[in-house]
Amino acid sequence: MEIIAVAREMQRRSDLKRMKGKRIAFVPTMGYLHEGHLNLMREGRSISDDLVVSIFVNPTQFGPNEDLAKYPRDFERDRRLCESVGVDVIFTPSPEEMYPLLFQTYVSVEGVTKNLCGLSRPGHFRGVATVCAKLFNIVKPHAAVFGKKDFQQFVTIRRMAEDLNLDVEIVGMTTTREPDGLAMSSRNTYLKTEERKSALSLYRSLLLAQDLYDKGERRAAVIIDRVAAFIESHPATAIDYVKICDAAAMEDIEFIDGDGVIALAVKVGATRLIDNHVFGETLPAYGS
Amino acid sequence: MEIIAVAREMQRRSDLKRMKGKRIAFVPTMGYLHEGHLNLMREGRSISDDLVVSIFVNPTQFGPNEDLAKYPRDFERDRRLCESVGVDVIFTPSPEEMYPLLFQTYVSVEGVTKNLCGLSRPGHFRGVATVCAKLFNIVKPHAAVFGKKDFQQFVTIRRMAEDLNLDVEIVGMTTTREPDGLAMSSRNTYLKTEERKSALSLYRSLLLAQDLYDKGERRAAVIIDRVAAFIESHPATAIDYVKICDAAAMEDIEFIDGDGVIALAVKVGATRLIDNHVFGETLPAYGS
Repeated sequence: MEIIAVAREMQRRSDLKRMKGKRIAFVPTMGYLHEGHLNLMREGRSISDDLVVSIFVNPTQFGPNEDLAKYPRDFERDRRLCESVGVDVIFTPSPEEMYPLLFQTYVSVEGVTKNLCGLSRPGHFRGVATVCAKLFNIVKPHAAVFGKKDFQQFVTIRRMAEDLNLDVEIVGMTTTREPDGLAMSSRNTYLKTEERKSALSLYRSLLLAQDLYDKGERRAAVIIDRVAAFIESHPATAIDYVKICDAAAMEDIEFIDGDGVIALAVKVGATRLIDNHVFGETLPAYGS
Repeated sequence: MEIIAVAREMQRRSDLKRMKGKRIAFVPTMGYLHEGHLNLMREGRSISDDLVVSIFVNPTQFGPNEDLAKYPRDFERDRRLCESVGVDVIFTPSPEEMYPLLFQTYVSVEGVTKNLCGLSRPGHFRGVATVCAKLFNIVKPHAAVFGKKDFQQFVTIRRMAEDLNLDVEIVGMTTTREPDGLAMSSRNTYLKTEERKSALSLYRSLLLAQDLYDKGERRAAVIIDRVAAFIESHPATAIDYVKICDAAAMEDIEFIDGDGVIALAVKVGATRLIDNHVFGETLPAYGS
């Protein structure tokens, strides 16, 4: 397994692979890898000859009062995990390599980033789109694999790739969950014991929403109220948003017809967690 | 010579060329080609195995009151001119191919686009950067050749390529001029006979500026005043801006030390013309 920190070096390696007709898959991450990341890598491995993973805690997608400085990092552990699933290259640049002094160019995806986390985290998706555009230009992959836990991010990157003719297939993967259903996230490590119990209310509220849907409920407001009340009945929870949106445009909908997604952002203690569910898709009953 | 209108088709062709180790040069244009464009193509021809020219009048770089609808077009003439300098492919997409209904992603270069035409034409450089990012992703060139008549555009694209790791060498070429010194531009075709005479004041004012510089003048305000007075002494001229900037940051400077550029935008009759000169560089005495 190679470890590369310099963008030019990564580009030259990818040029050579492409000239040999190799298919490159790419999994961008901020490190502190968990089973969810490893599932993205396994998918990438299965659809490519060459698997590149980036580990870069991207400063431009964090707000001024967010957790950039304390975001968990453990490169040695990440390296071993990448090796265990057959990664060919870890691309791990410094912030200065990605954002030199004169850096001043940003990619903005307008419509799909307005709602949800775009409201709560101004500038977040501009940072995400910009770093992904850069990483795609550095790694030059044929396919890039993203987790759908960050559903709006997945929609944003897919939109950007199409709009900017990026010639990368954007693959979205089902959320990987803990045995009790909690969506895997590097931020779960922040949760104290009691908070970890309350955090499960996110997943369980999605089961509740799907159950209401299965019983014929299509009014977004009714489902949202029930979900919000359920989450708020758990200690140390504070809802940022509970919304039901069109799964392509990410705009609020009043009634669910076609592809509707319920998306949640909830602070549990000091930790902000997100989760989502597309109505009608499978949502396994974990830990029951 | 091939003519391609579909982005996917262009990408597949470029992939094949790259796999064979061919070096691709690219000249993006809005058509209505003149000798300036042809010089860019000759340069592209000399540094590549494969020369792609795009002809696309890009709507996103025109303001609502600008000349998009009447911008001159003559594809048959352009085709012959491209063939005459050995172009391999003309990429000529429709507006719908470049900007489908759901299009919503833009590339913004911040610092270097604030001044000059960025002040006069809000959104112009966002449109330029976005279409160039798209065209680079479609054509996948090793090098792209731009004219320095649009100096701020050249600086903007060079900045974008570096910031987004576009892996394209941005080549800037000296402005091609008419025998009397007027910078070549597709918009020169708008000029009536008397306006054509006044238009020459732009080039001549640059000679004046260089002459003042040669005599030791370094105060920007003094040079700007002399240049503006000279242009205004010609009929049918209205100055949009006369500025002296740092040639890398495009910020106004008070004194010329290091790389200074004088940049002009002048309306002659109804036609807006631009020109510029980097102090100390050669400015041939045309038509004298």
